[in-house]
Amino acid sequence: MFTRLLRRYADLSYNKLITNLTSTPKAKPNDLTKVPFGTVFTDHMIEVDWCEDKGWSEPIIKPYQKIPLDPSCSVFHYCTECYEGFKVYSNPPHILSFRPMTNMERFVISADAAGLPKCSPHELLKCIDELIRIDKDWVPQVPGYTLYVRPNMFGTHAQLSVTKPKKAKLVVIMSLVGPYFPTGYKPISLYCDESLIRSWTGGHGHRKIGGNYGPAIVPAEKVKKLGYDNILWLSEGRVTEVGVMNFFVLFKNKHGLELVTSPIHHTVLPGITRDSVIQLIHEWGEVKMSERDFTIQELIAKLEEENVVEAFGSGTAAVICPINKLAYKGKEYNIPTVQGNCGELTKRIFDELTKIQYGKIKHKWNHYIA
Amino acid sequence: MFTRLLRRYADLSYNKLITNLTSTPKAKPNDLTKVPFGTVFTDHMIEVDWCEDKGWSEPIIKPYQKIPLDPSCSVFHYCTECYEGFKVYSNPPHILSFRPMTNMERFVISADAAGLPKCSPHELLKCIDELIRIDKDWVPQVPGYTLYVRPNMFGTHAQLSVTKPKKAKLVVIMSLVGPYFPTGYKPISLYCDESLIRSWTGGHGHRKIGGNYGPAIVPAEKVKKLGYDNILWLSEGRVTEVGVMNFFVLFKNKHGLELVTSPIHHTVLPGITRDSVIQLIHEWGEVKMSERDFTIQELIAKLEEENVVEAFGSGTAAVICPINKLAYKGKEYNIPTVQGNCGELTKRIFDELTKIQYGKIKHKWNHYIA
Repeated sequence: MFTRLLRRYADLSYNKLITNLTSTPKAKPNDLTKVPFGTVFTDHMIEVDWCEDKGWSEPIIKPYQKIPLDPSCSVFHYCTECYEGFKVYSNPPHILSFRPMTNMERFVISADAAGLPKCSPHELLKCIDELIRIDKDWVPQVPGYTLYVRPNMFGTHAQLSVTKPKKAKLVVIMSLVGPYFPTGYKPISLYCDESLIRSWTGGHGHRKIGGNYGPAIVPAEKVKKLGYDNILWLSEGRVTEVGVMNFFVLFKNKHGLELVTSPIHHTVLPGITRDSVIQLIHEWGEVKMSERDFTIQELIAKLEEENVVEAFGSGTAAVICPINKLAYKGKEYNIPTVQGNCGELTKRIFDELTKIQYGKIKHKWNHYIA
Repeated sequence: MFTRLLRRYADLSYNKLITNLTSTPKAKPNDLTKVPFGTVFTDHMIEVDWCEDKGWSEPIIKPYQKIPLDPSCSVFHYCTECYEGFKVYSNPPHILSFRPMTNMERFVISADAAGLPKCSPHELLKCIDELIRIDKDWVPQVPGYTLYVRPNMFGTHAQLSVTKPKKAKLVVIMSLVGPYFPTGYKPISLYCDESLIRSWTGGHGHRKIGGNYGPAIVPAEKVKKLGYDNILWLSEGRVTEVGVMNFFVLFKNKHGLELVTSPIHHTVLPGITRDSVIQLIHEWGEVKMSERDFTIQELIAKLEEENVVEAFGSGTAAVICPINKLAYKGKEYNIPTVQGNCGELTKRIFDELTKIQYGKIKHKWNHYIA
């Protein structure tokens, strides 16, 4: 019984890592600008299997390849899945990532919410760092371009009842990415519709699980057909997030400037870029930083009074993305972008964050891999 | 351009069906009672690929097998997936299914909500009927046991941006199933907690998409540890459904009996067994059938007044499942089961439905396959 218990909880272990390198490395694309977001993958990937009886097997670094799966695996039916995403930056002769342990910790929390097994975030990061070192020649040298690391876990138990999967697979793949918005660093427009609800108190909108993304695709595409770039989601009247980004707005109040973003509740993803922005604003100490509830009515009132100074989205893929327009109830509101395509604070945050991310500034958030 | 348009909309077609039978059929289990729900699959499956440019390819019936998939397919990350489930019954020398076109129509609606392509529900059913005929020896002859048909569609586009998949796969597998509740036809207990929310107005709780199931697994397992069989989900204070079943309760009112179930809104799956129960009650004309909102407070008040006559869940897997207990805010309420393990109306509905399903009664809901 005790042996079984031990075996059951065998954790993911970097020391057990098996490396099986490709003998036929792929050609890297010549022109990164022609590579759509997340379509070209590096030579290798990590695959680790888990089962209820034995715990985590040896992690394997192997050539990037298709995975054969039983069609009854719960991931295809019941969305037993979670993921993470972070970027690797080149600063010759070094390569580095940005706060990756925060991603690892969020991954474990998401897995638990999706009915999937936990693993050691430290051991997982060590395996991922090794994968990055193996494929380090894939890290783009072109500014704005990075290597995007995608850890993903899903249920592989071949049975149809709606229960915790007794088997799961953890996969890490890496992709070449350019700017998330292919039109380049230009402001985006948001559409806000009270009838579209992404997340709600008591739900799972704060977890990085598949179910928060797929069902949001159709509404987002409808909004694109109306001429807007994305949705500003509400929940119970409160402004929450943009779905692929957190939402920040700079208000002009009687007593000064206030940068506002929604608290997490169960409705907002605890973005790592979001947290970094909040920490930077607190450090700078120039503008009041508020994680607080605010309704769409408050936002619209501020827009009508011309007391919205600027607004932006934050996320790993987009980093910081200026917002210049909001549509609500048939009316369009312009949001200032004093720097031409961007607000002043937005630009400053973007510049500071990207300097840290590329290692141009020494910072506790740097994670050097090589 | 016109040719491209035609190709783009190539529908799924039964006439294009390719059949590739196994040369090594599997042994069928001797003792069905030892087969857990949805773990043993028949010899064959259907696989059909879709891509944005060409539409639906030829459907293929092939030996049941693993499917190799690129780890970047959107189904693993963003829950671009939907499914259906219905049963095949043996009534020698015939085999039949129960209202399968309703499942096909709901499947197409779910696919659309998940950002997946539509297909002709008629053509899909013709392909599935052919699969059933090929594997007809798998339809159990033992009462209570059936062949469960699981159509499933998911995004196979190998790219990481959160957009409609440009490629998808439709798979149909079939599994031996016994009673969904392994303890047999006995009443279940429900636990109701206002902090657990499965679905909400403006969301997708009324679609058979993966995101409604995975995130509900962990709460359901917690409730099991408390000694209850399942969750009675609330949404905005209203009683909605049981997650794998719709919920019906028979109230004793001043002017007579009223069978109540929640309307669909966006919070309740439009169950086919649910609809069948509603139609039967209307036909019988003895009890008032109400699809109406009711709050947990109304339900608790009725329980306290002893004006709940009986309650049951309905679903394809469970058919009709009596409920004998409800826990809410630390208090347990008993629900009468006058027939020993079941209410009188519950029993009558179960008997009638299973007679129709097994073809013991000629009915418009019968769909004969062979």
